[in-house]
Parts: sequence; C-alpha cells; structure tokens
Amino acid sequence: MRLSSLSVAGVETIGLHKDDGVYDLRIASPDLPQRLDHLMMSDDGLQRATRAADRITNDCRMRDASVAYLPLLRNPGKIICVGRNYAAHAREGGVEPLAYPDLFLRCSTSLIGHECAMVRPRCSDKLDYEGELAFVIGRKARHVRAADAHDYVLGYSLFNEGTIRDYQRKSSQWTIGKNFDGTGAFGPFLVTSDELPSGAAGLELTTRLNGMEMQSGNTDDLIFPVDKLIEILTECMTLEPGDVVVTGTPSGVGYARTPPVFLKPGDVVEVDIEGMGTLRNHVADD
Amino acid sequence: MRLSSLSVAGVETIGLHKDDGVYDLRIASPDLPQRLDHLMMSDDGLQRATRAADRITNDCRMRDASVAYLPLLRNPGKIICVGRNYAAHAREGGVEPLAYPDLFLRCSTSLIGHECAMVRPRCSDKLDYEGELAFVIGRKARHVRAADAHDYVLGYSLFNEGTIRDYQRKSSQWTIGKNFDGTGAFGPFLVTSDELPSGAAGLELTTRLNGMEMQSGNTDDLIFPVDKLIEILTECMTLEPGDVVVTGTPSGVGYARTPPVFLKPGDVVEVDIEGMGTLRNHVADD
Repeated sequence: MRLSSLSVAGVETIGLHKDDGVYDLRIASPDLPQRLDHLMMSDDGLQRATRAADRITNDCRMRDASVAYLPLLRNPGKIICVGRNYAAHAREGGVEPLAYPDLFLRCSTSLIGHECAMVRPRCSDKLDYEGELAFVIGRKARHVRAADAHDYVLGYSLFNEGTIRDYQRKSSQWTIGKNFDGTGAFGPFLVTSDELPSGAAGLELTTRLNGMEMQSGNTDDLIFPVDKLIEILTECMTLEPGDVVVTGTPSGVGYARTPPVFLKPGDVVEVDIEGMGTLRNHVADD
Repeated sequence: MRLSSLSVAGVETIGLHKDDGVYDLRIASPDLPQRLDHLMMSDDGLQRATRAADRITNDCRMRDASVAYLPLLRNPGKIICVGRNYAAHAREGGVEPLAYPDLFLRCSTSLIGHECAMVRPRCSDKLDYEGELAFVIGRKARHVRAADAHDYVLGYSLFNEGTIRDYQRKSSQWTIGKNFDGTGAFGPFLVTSDELPSGAAGLELTTRLNGMEMQSGNTDDLIFPVDKLIEILTECMTLEPGDVVVTGTPSGVGYARTPPVFLKPGDVVEVDIEGMGTLRNHVADD
C-alpha cells in the first residue's frame, strides 16, 4: 500500500495511491481517524488501513485539483535523525565513518509536505538539502536485536532533511540547524514494508536540484542500516508506533561542494528512491 | 495556580494544588480534557484552567492515597533542552561559556513524573542528575524579541534532566545520552507565571542526592535567561502552546566530581527551586 496525508479542500484525510488513481480512505472507512499519524500511532493502524483499502470503490476516487500534500506524519511521537551514515558523506564533512551513529531529533514544526515550499529563513542564506530514506515504526520496540528488527518497521518514505548550515555549526549540537520551520520535507507516500526489499536495502537514492543530480547513493551503503539502527536505538529507548527514523544522507550535499551550493527561492529539489516515488519541493523565502 | 498531571486509581486527571489540599479540576469542570498537555496545547488552556479553579468545591478534594504523579506534560509538541547554560557548569565540563547555546531535544518516552523511578539502564552505570528550571509556552511564538518574551510563558516547573554520560559522549551529538527511557523527571507542578518573578529570575535552585546538596545555583546566573532563549529559539522555529524549554543545569553534576558520582538503585534525587516545590525521584534498575 501507498498511503499519504492529504488536505482535500481544507479537510484532512488519508489517501490511498493505486495505479489507476488516488482514493480517499476515509470515504471507504469513515471510522478511521482523519490523520495518518493518529492512525499509525495505534497498534492496529496497518490492519485498519488494509481493511479500509479492501473496501475502496469508485466513489472514493479523488479529483486531483483540490488535493494538497501534508507532512506524511504531522506530529509523530519522535523523529530521530542519523548523521553521517554514509561513509562518503562522513568524509566530505571531514570525519572518518563512526563506530556509533550521530543521533539527533527533529520536531514537527520543522515539517512540510510534498510539493510545499521549503523555507529559507530570514536569518541565514545557508539552506542545504539532504535526501534521505526514512522508516516508520509499526510496533512498540525495546531491546530488539537486529535479526528481529525488520518486523517492527511499518513502512518507508522519503525525507529531505533541510539544514541551515551556519546554525548547525553555531554550537557543538546540530539540533537548531536541523529544526528551522518548514525545512524538513516528508513524503509523499508511506510505502508499506511488504512493497519493498527487507530493510529497504539495495535501493538507489537520488537528489536533484533544478533537474541536476546532486546526490546519488545506495541504501546498501548505509553504515548503520535499518535493522542495526533499531537495535542501537532500542537499547536506549522505546520506539513507539508512528515514530520516524531518518537514516542519513549520501555525499553530495551543497555546503561541501566547491564552490558551495545553497538553496535559493525558486529552486526545486527532488529526492527519489526506487519504488518510493519522488519528494518534490520548491524553495521560498520566509 | 499550581497544576499537576495525576493518575487517580488509574484514571488520568488534572490536579489543582492549594494550601489546604489537592483538588480534581475535572470534577469542577468535566469538559476539560483528561490530560494537562492536551489542555495546554490550546490557546485558551490557561483561561479554561482558571475558570475551572474558580468552580472548585469541597467535593473536588482528592484523597492522597490513590494519587500518582505523571510527567507534568505527557507528550508536549517539543522539549527543548539547553546545555551548559550556567558558566560554572560550562567550565566544569571543560569549556568557556558559549556565545550561542547548545540546544538539543528530548522525546516524551524519556519522561517520568514526580516520585516515579528514575531508570538506570541495562547498558550503562553512568546515570547522572541535572537539576533544572523548565518553562512552558502559552502562546504561539515566532520572531519574538526578548523584551516581549515573558508574555509567551504560561508557567514554570522543575526538571531532572537525567543523562547517561557515556552515551552522551559516544558521538558528537548528546541526544541519545539524553533520551533514555525513564531518565527525565518533570514536575511536580506547573506553577503559572503570575506566581513567580518575571522570567523566574533570582530563584535559588538546589539538587540533593540522598539529602546531601550536590548542586546549588541561582536562575540569575543563566547565561541565556528565559527571555533571551525565547528570542533565540523563535528566530528559528515556532514555539507552540505546551512546548517546554529546559534551561540548563548549574555546576555540581556527578560526572565532573572527584571521584565521579553516578546514581545507583535506591538513591533519592531531589530538585527544588524557591516557590516551585520539590521534584523527588528514586533510582531503580531497568
């Protein structure tokens, strides 16, 4: 299944994307919550979505014109990001690959949906892109070993982990540079795990800026892949249904280029991973 | 007003603490949400709580025996923590006071309530305390200047920002060492701003371990006080009603002592700030 968070004429709902069009899952099942995050924070979220998808009829079909994408999950319990998780990207930042991942959190006020504006703030012109694979937790997870970890993944999506580079480096902690309003693009689809290789392994990830390829990587090159991240995280904390992990970006980010490339109003950034669609955002000033 | 998040015989409610006892605000006003965080995430949360407090009668009084404290706000939109915000604590960690604060986020799975067990994890014996002043946002805030910032503060509370020191230093980012399950004690009361000096300035903060004073500071010594933090944060992001900022800890933490002191099962940690009560937690192994 491919699910999305949509606003239809200002009303929030859950989209189901099939080859022949987009369907409103809440017309098929009005008992579903309006918000995909609320649905997926419960233990039976996937089952409820699956049952609703089985009930889809032609009456549930959406007209594209009135639909806007929201952040895939509007307010997850947590959004955990992994830094420098591709060896070539670690090296372009000046460090060797790490023995333990750099972890930080994003908050939901930083999120935007597919085709929404990525915001360059008033205080900095150092907005940079980072195309990434994200995964969503489906079951409460604590002290999970890597060998069992894939069972806890509900599905996958794309993330453009937009970063204000000078604020990322203003102190030792990157968090503020990673949490500006309107910088974290998340979507367009939640692709359930059954549609992808286990751990979303072996998939090509590409980031394009105004049509030009800027990042190209393969999820096989993750230093800490999905299963290992779940083991590392659940040694420390409980992962809950609907929690999001954003797995890190390959080499080719803007600030590490010669000369550096930063995003400016009118730019269009696209992130895609095989089988997961394309996350597209334009840039606008605050 | 002093408000709390309570579990009464397993049912969540909002407590009102007065000199003559504790009252159940939802008996006075059954239309209030069960959870204090849900109440305070709305723009009129404080007004609704105030109206309910005016309706308190003797029938709303609680019997202490059946009451347990929950994390003051169970799942705030964000919990922003400030590192090294007292000069003496920055120096005990080996750095000079900073020009821009170290900022990181905590997630709600790390939270515990007053008188709950602070959890020493399986993977480390380096659990440390950090007594801190926290404040809660009452109005949506963006691009707010320090001079106007106090108007955005709903109230204050205490935080024991428990840290797993070896995990804090496993990589460049402290986040994982700050987000272990059951390490962040938050409460007991939300003390509304009208009960305290503006910006909670000039208040003594004390942390005791098994009755012995370990940290002693004054909120006047914050490098970045409440108003300045709001200015710095809202340059970058929107603060929403119910968001929490944890302002940093004074010197005297366990790991910086000679010899180092780490928390062990049975220890009791108390944090207090004048006029805000005492946050007390015992330590237990996972």
